[in-house]
Amino acid sequence: MPQISLSRRLRRTPFSEGVEAAGVKGYTVYNRMLLPTVFESVEADYRHLKTHVQVWDVSCERQVELRGPDAAKLMQMLTPRDLRGMLPGQCFYVPIVDETGGMLNDPVAVKLSDDRWWISIADSDLLLWVKGIANGYRLDVLVDEPDVSPLAVQGPKADELMARVFGNRVRDIRFFKFDMFEFEGRDLAVARSGYSKQGGFEIYVEGSEIGMPLWNVLFKAGEDLQVRAGCPNLIERIEGGLLSYGNDMTDDNTPHECGLGKFCNTHTAIGCIGRDALLRVTKEGPVQQIRPLAIEGEPVPPCDRPWSVFAGGKRVGQVTSAAWSPDFETNVSIGMVRLSHWDAGTEVEVETPDGMRRAIVQKRFWI
Amino acid sequence: MPQISLSRRLRRTPFSEGVEAAGVKGYTVYNRMLLPTVFESVEADYRHLKTHVQVWDVSCERQVELRGPDAAKLMQMLTPRDLRGMLPGQCFYVPIVDETGGMLNDPVAVKLSDDRWWISIADSDLLLWVKGIANGYRLDVLVDEPDVSPLAVQGPKADELMARVFGNRVRDIRFFKFDMFEFEGRDLAVARSGYSKQGGFEIYVEGSEIGMPLWNVLFKAGEDLQVRAGCPNLIERIEGGLLSYGNDMTDDNTPHECGLGKFCNTHTAIGCIGRDALLRVTKEGPVQQIRPLAIEGEPVPPCDRPWSVFAGGKRVGQVTSAAWSPDFETNVSIGMVRLSHWDAGTEVEVETPDGMRRAIVQKRFWI
Repeated sequence: MPQISLSRRLRRTPFSEGVEAAGVKGYTVYNRMLLPTVFESVEADYRHLKTHVQVWDVSCERQVELRGPDAAKLMQMLTPRDLRGMLPGQCFYVPIVDETGGMLNDPVAVKLSDDRWWISIADSDLLLWVKGIANGYRLDVLVDEPDVSPLAVQGPKADELMARVFGNRVRDIRFFKFDMFEFEGRDLAVARSGYSKQGGFEIYVEGSEIGMPLWNVLFKAGEDLQVRAGCPNLIERIEGGLLSYGNDMTDDNTPHECGLGKFCNTHTAIGCIGRDALLRVTKEGPVQQIRPLAIEGEPVPPCDRPWSVFAGGKRVGQVTSAAWSPDFETNVSIGMVRLSHWDAGTEVEVETPDGMRRAIVQKRFWI
Repeated sequence: MPQISLSRRLRRTPFSEGVEAAGVKGYTVYNRMLLPTVFESVEADYRHLKTHVQVWDVSCERQVELRGPDAAKLMQMLTPRDLRGMLPGQCFYVPIVDETGGMLNDPVAVKLSDDRWWISIADSDLLLWVKGIANGYRLDVLVDEPDVSPLAVQGPKADELMARVFGNRVRDIRFFKFDMFEFEGRDLAVARSGYSKQGGFEIYVEGSEIGMPLWNVLFKAGEDLQVRAGCPNLIERIEGGLLSYGNDMTDDNTPHECGLGKFCNTHTAIGCIGRDALLRVTKEGPVQQIRPLAIEGEPVPPCDRPWSVFAGGKRVGQVTSAAWSPDFETNVSIGMVRLSHWDAGTEVEVETPDGMRRAIVQKRFWI
């Protein structure tokens, strides 16, 4: 496997020192920033994540900050999800679409106040789209990337660890809500969210200089909980059906194809740039959609390019994420499958680098 | 050194198969695409590049295509360089700036015709900025990323190799001009350009399916020229003063700070979005600027974060790219230095991971 060549362009994070000391073995690059992918091994990290608690450097979930009188208006222009009912303290998963209805990102919007929002982004320079729109429509809003780096605490013991550091009030945070907590004299937003299905929190660390102090406090407080450095786990996120922008969807796809139709209030999201383009797909439905597929046989190699899905000799889709699941004893995978073959139980063939494999479309993800 | 974890999100290229067969040892990620960084070793690759000819997979220089009646107008909105005199068949190095004059990218603009342009980008999703501006200003233009992947042929024997494949007419292409050449029934733009100072060409390979056929033809034709797979070489590009967006400059910097003031026709580039913001810096000049610095002593480690530059105990700049140069027997580097200390011959100190090093501001880059 080739090495990664480090340079300033692949940005370090406020937690890189801790990540390195914990023996990170692999990286990917996400928003031009280093994102760890493996510490002990992907399988050992998976087992630990499901049993204990991990601290993840997800600084690469950069924030796009909207500030000013037109912030809410701009936020609604970006997404077909109706944001009128959203209150400060809430986080909304929001598809972001261009004027053709193509997905530009699938971030979490964090409403700090009516005129201040963060968009916690997946892997694309959404900042540039938002700045371009704000400029072109002459909106009264400042758009910038603040010095905010999310640190995730994930796993079954996440509540216990977080309570030890921030007090028992963290236990009261409800899913996709956030509240403010003090650390070293700063007020930090702490949300119950994260890119795993094991439960946990994301701390929006504002100010790089408190990154390592917070990291160290978490590790010290969690020693007897067997806290470890971790990262989004390939196996666990596929089992849980957590999509990855750039892997499972691109700007070629509508939100409906990604199974995100429930986040598209096309009739009421007035002002959304992609609204017109999505009206028809909202009415008719998409012709292909994200599906879980169980790929039979031995563990598959890493999915570093789309694997075609066939049925009766015809191409009916592609698989874009796949891994062997120790818990479900099959290869779990995420694919985009055509309407004709997306029903649960449908048998298809997946063209892996190791040859054709039998696969079954699943009714739901594994968790 | 950690490994890179491959996934579909880190896009492969039409030439990846050839790159792998040639034994690539390291990658970086550039525009969410794999860019090789080393084959034999950075020093061996450097020596070979300066002696023979190399074929580089620089597919990651993605194109932003502008097509339609407002294409030229949009192009001028993006850059402070006056494009009125630019003819089809020309390539212009163009700083791209936002409304504050901050650099969003430093691409090469390729004028195919009055209403069709390619922007051959450095590492940022410039597509999203351009799409946002086109949408916001309601311009009559299509903006997209076409299936075009540049393949560079670089080195002293580049003319000979290219002439064998495309005919002697390639020798007539002048610097930063392009002409059309036929390959397997396709017309491909071939420019005399590239990210080295050794001379050579960039082939804009339109249509992924002809990628490996072209790769193979080049390698077969160049056997006796000792053609090899290569990549932008860290040492050679620093010696030559070729800047790297994300390393040596970011959106914090104006073009003037990057030494690109000569490409800013602030008084005549009417329509440029960042023009107003740049008028003052054009008149007064920047307070810091890119400079070559020779760092004394042993070879420095990789520069994966800014190294502060000090003089008399005060921070006066930073180094962002550095490497040991076998030919110049010093550490060549690129830094951003404050006006007070940017004169050639000024002695400063650079804070490297190995400790403070004496460094001298150079009059010019080494080549």
